[in-house]
Amino acid sequence: MNAPEAWLLPDVQAIADRRNIYINRVGVKSLLHPLRIAGPGGEVSTVATVDMAVGLPPQVKGTHMSRFVEVLQQHEAALDAAGFAALLARMLKRLDADSGMIEMRFPYFISKRAPVSGVASLLDYQVMLRGECTAAGTVFTTRVSAPATSLCPCSKEISEYGAHNQRSNIAITVQGDAALSIEEIAGIAEQEASCEVYGLLKRPDEKYVTERAYDNPKFVEDLVRDIALRLDADPRVRSYTVEAENFESIHNHSAYALVERVK
Amino acid sequence: MNAPEAWLLPDVQAIADRRNIYINRVGVKSLLHPLRIAGPGGEVSTVATVDMAVGLPPQVKGTHMSRFVEVLQQHEAALDAAGFAALLARMLKRLDADSGMIEMRFPYFISKRAPVSGVASLLDYQVMLRGECTAAGTVFTTRVSAPATSLCPCSKEISEYGAHNQRSNIAITVQGDAALSIEEIAGIAEQEASCEVYGLLKRPDEKYVTERAYDNPKFVEDLVRDIALRLDADPRVRSYTVEAENFESIHNHSAYALVERVK
Amino acid sequence: MNAPEAWLLPDVQAIADRRNIYINRVGVKSLLHPLRIAGPGGEVSTVATVDMAVGLPPQVKGTHMSRFVEVLQQHEAALDAAGFAALLARMLKRLDADSGMIEMRFPYFISKRAPVSGVASLLDYQVMLRGECTAAGTVFTTRVSAPATSLCPCSKEISEYGAHNQRSNIAITVQGDAALSIEEIAGIAEQEASCEVYGLLKRPDEKYVTERAYDNPKFVEDLVRDIALRLDADPRVRSYTVEAENFESIHNHSAYALVERVK
Amino acid sequence: MNAPEAWLLPDVQAIADRRNIYINRVGVKSLLHPLRIAGPGGEVSTVATVDMAVGLPPQVKGTHMSRFVEVLQQHEAALDAAGFAALLARMLKRLDADSGMIEMRFPYFISKRAPVSGVASLLDYQVMLRGECTAAGTVFTTRVSAPATSLCPCSKEISEYGAHNQRSNIAITVQGDAALSIEEIAGIAEQEASCEVYGLLKRPDEKYVTERAYDNPKFVEDLVRDIALRLDADPRVRSYTVEAENFESIHNHSAYALVERVK
Repeated sequence: MNAPEAWLLPDVQAIADRRNIYINRVGVKSLLHPLRIAGPGGEVSTVATVDMAVGLPPQVKGTHMSRFVEVLQQHEAALDAAGFAALLARMLKRLDADSGMIEMRFPYFISKRAPVSGVASLLDYQVMLRGECTAAGTVFTTRVSAPATSLCPCSKEISEYGAHNQRSNIAITVQGDAALSIEEIAGIAEQEASCEVYGLLKRPDEKYVTERAYDNPKFVEDLVRDIALRLDADPRVRSYTVEAENFESIHNHSAYALVERVK
Repeated sequence: MNAPEAWLLPDVQAIADRRNIYINRVGVKSLLHPLRIAGPGGEVSTVATVDMAVGLPPQVKGTHMSRFVEVLQQHEAALDAAGFAALLARMLKRLDADSGMIEMRFPYFISKRAPVSGVASLLDYQVMLRGECTAAGTVFTTRVSAPATSLCPCSKEISEYGAHNQRSNIAITVQGDAALSIEEIAGIAEQEASCEVYGLLKRPDEKYVTERAYDNPKFVEDLVRDIALRLDADPRVRSYTVEAENFESIHNHSAYALVERVK
Repeated sequence: MNAPEAWLLPDVQAIADRRNIYINRVGVKSLLHPLRIAGPGGEVSTVATVDMAVGLPPQVKGTHMSRFVEVLQQHEAALDAAGFAALLARMLKRLDADSGMIEMRFPYFISKRAPVSGVASLLDYQVMLRGECTAAGTVFTTRVSAPATSLCPCSKEISEYGAHNQRSNIAITVQGDAALSIEEIAGIAEQEASCEVYGLLKRPDEKYVTERAYDNPKFVEDLVRDIALRLDADPRVRSYTVEAENFESIHNHSAYALVERVK
Repeated sequence: MNAPEAWLLPDVQAIADRRNIYINRVGVKSLLHPLRIAGPGGEVSTVATVDMAVGLPPQVKGTHMSRFVEVLQQHEAALDAAGFAALLARMLKRLDADSGMIEMRFPYFISKRAPVSGVASLLDYQVMLRGECTAAGTVFTTRVSAPATSLCPCSKEISEYGAHNQRSNIAITVQGDAALSIEEIAGIAEQEASCEVYGLLKRPDEKYVTERAYDNPKFVEDLVRDIALRLDADPRVRSYTVEAENFESIHNHSAYALVERVK
């Protein structure tokens, strides 16, 4: 089929709709896409799960799904805050839409040095970037989920020796003008945990993290409060949510806490 | 250790906290729990993933995690709307809390008859029940996700024969006084799809569902709009969200649409 | 459409196939089904994810998928070893097959008493039951995955205080005549861990499990070896696989070990 | 802590073990790692989930977990078959082991052209690479899972119009000297499906894929048989498994078939 013939195919999406229902979001979901993120230490290559959607006026029957994929795949540069805003703007223009959102979820890697030996290794964080444009303006949201160690203050206090500890997931979601980097957000989560985790630890490091966690016991409540204090004090953050989930080593369920604040 | 000795263990959670941070939610998360639901056709046994949380005043260091599990496991009757409200109230009382929430996510089974042969089989739906109590009152939310068939109107229109179709997931979330049963919500989703799906179909049924879907093509946009019309007309629904996700048979990503409305 | 008309529809699956390829397994997969298990302490209600398949001779074009669902849904009694064998036999007969398999994966609940307070609570285990019939006979396999606590011997030894610990998943897979109950297999996994986990612990219990784990440090290597010794000594076990996965509290990846043996 | 002090920490893993149990596999599991794959069209950046393990002799108490991560993170070149073999060899040497395995699972992207418009877009495939070294030699395994469209021959035959179709997942696992590229394996899966899927299709393409699938109906049985014929004819393949899973658009479970063969 040649191009002119394509124009002869009816465009079902473009016909008028009489149901008078505005659709808040319509688009593509769970699209896997390779992505390069422009990080402070250079580009980080990853694979993102991408959702893209626009608002659809009552009188239009359908959106044009292929255009979302087109817009995404035409973006070739490593993604930074300006590039993400431009991508959102191009999607709205290409879809002829007044409102819309792009959300990308991906693992992100930061090279860390072990606390005693100084050996470098990568650690993976789960990141979500979302840009949402409505009549009220455009809001950018960044969520960074950092793995960390938590050690139970109650267990330490009541036991003659030892204290149960476990891997935790600390998720910080901030809204604002994207002034905080992924690295900064991850750093806040890690500094307020009982101890940071690492990809690679030698024996002297393992001694350090064991004793550090024992010296620094925290409930999920402490984790979210100590991080909230940090974010309250940061003028770049306009609103935030902090969540901590402890994969309890003495149960088969999690302990969980959440603080959210609009300044 | 005998009981009196237990009282001598320090209660770390109960000590005063000076950080002055209110915690919106703290509790247990992702607890697997067997559950019986009181359905219109009798009890439905299932397994729920349960989250329970309360608000924690700034001056209190920690909540008492074991009490959530205690409250949940003491509930023995098949769950209905009144029982869910009572469970939420008991949790708040036991945790000495002003606000809190319980969320349960579970598969639910409805026996359906195949459209031609009349053969009965079970179909599974994903259900979420949430009760949330704040100073503004208590809100109950029910979400039912129904599998269904969608057939693409564009593909049908432009092709000389055939039309791509696929499994869809239609999720209806309603807030209100729980006047709609899981069965009613599932029914609305299924009636507005290109066709319903079934656990068991004989050949005459397969002929029926194939032709029914072809006669009834719908975009994700059509799915959410037709369901929105139904919910708009139902006085028992105070607010709702309708989502449709098509696991496209011609792509490796989904088409997705969402309508939300507060009446 | 009435029943006679159904017979007029062509049976595409039954036509001859000329490709001369035997199909090792064909059937249904990932079917959600409510299930009652006959446990030693009474029935346990759960929801299983079920796979069912048969071997298909080279000359037959297709199997009859609806019959698998029919056979499964006709089984109404609480499942025990004899019932599982009968279900497998009925499937083979209904599908007119010489070989086939049924696999069911589900959460299972055991009521446990906390070690000091004696408070009862449910704990969830992941169970897999598989029956496989071939020309060589029928083999039944049971896998029980138990959550448990592991405490690192190295961390304890090298640190002046504390020791990192975490939730582990211990999976024991046994083949034989199903003489070991789910409860027995779970018990072996739990007794050989640094400590058992529980749904509900009071403060004296938390002191106990903290100290118990510290007194009983184990690597993943120790977990699988100590369980292997137990299974080696049990004449009812003909072959087994033991796996331990520690969700390391100091890393964001797992430590893992596996021992397998055919006696 | 300075370096000399590190040497004073006891090496618990290195002490003798008296239980006399050989451990088939011990190592790290579910480690997220950024990876570049050397593809025929250039490098493909992705993120892999990595498992690495070695066999552990009866007399050794524990392996050295940090060395696995060290070996993995020292590999910097884009991965090809020779590089994977070298990585496996380095791991065995570093861990002083006679046997061991590395398994990597990752999404892989291939740029495809739409069938009529020729528009290029990326499609994602799930790939698993495994190298396993035992006394019997080293075996390399490649599994490629390709999304595809399947259209039901029975539904087409018995219906006056239309035919149910759906997204399928076709997984081909081959063992041999890695002579088949990911692209070749994916191509075999796609060519034998009712139709290929694409990231981006324009209307003339959508017409094409709709009609192509309708002209080319296949059961899961047909999918695995037609692929088996292709692999039987390829002298580079020594043994293989072919699996097809159809996410049925008329049910909420899958149809599934598997053929495995050792030549």
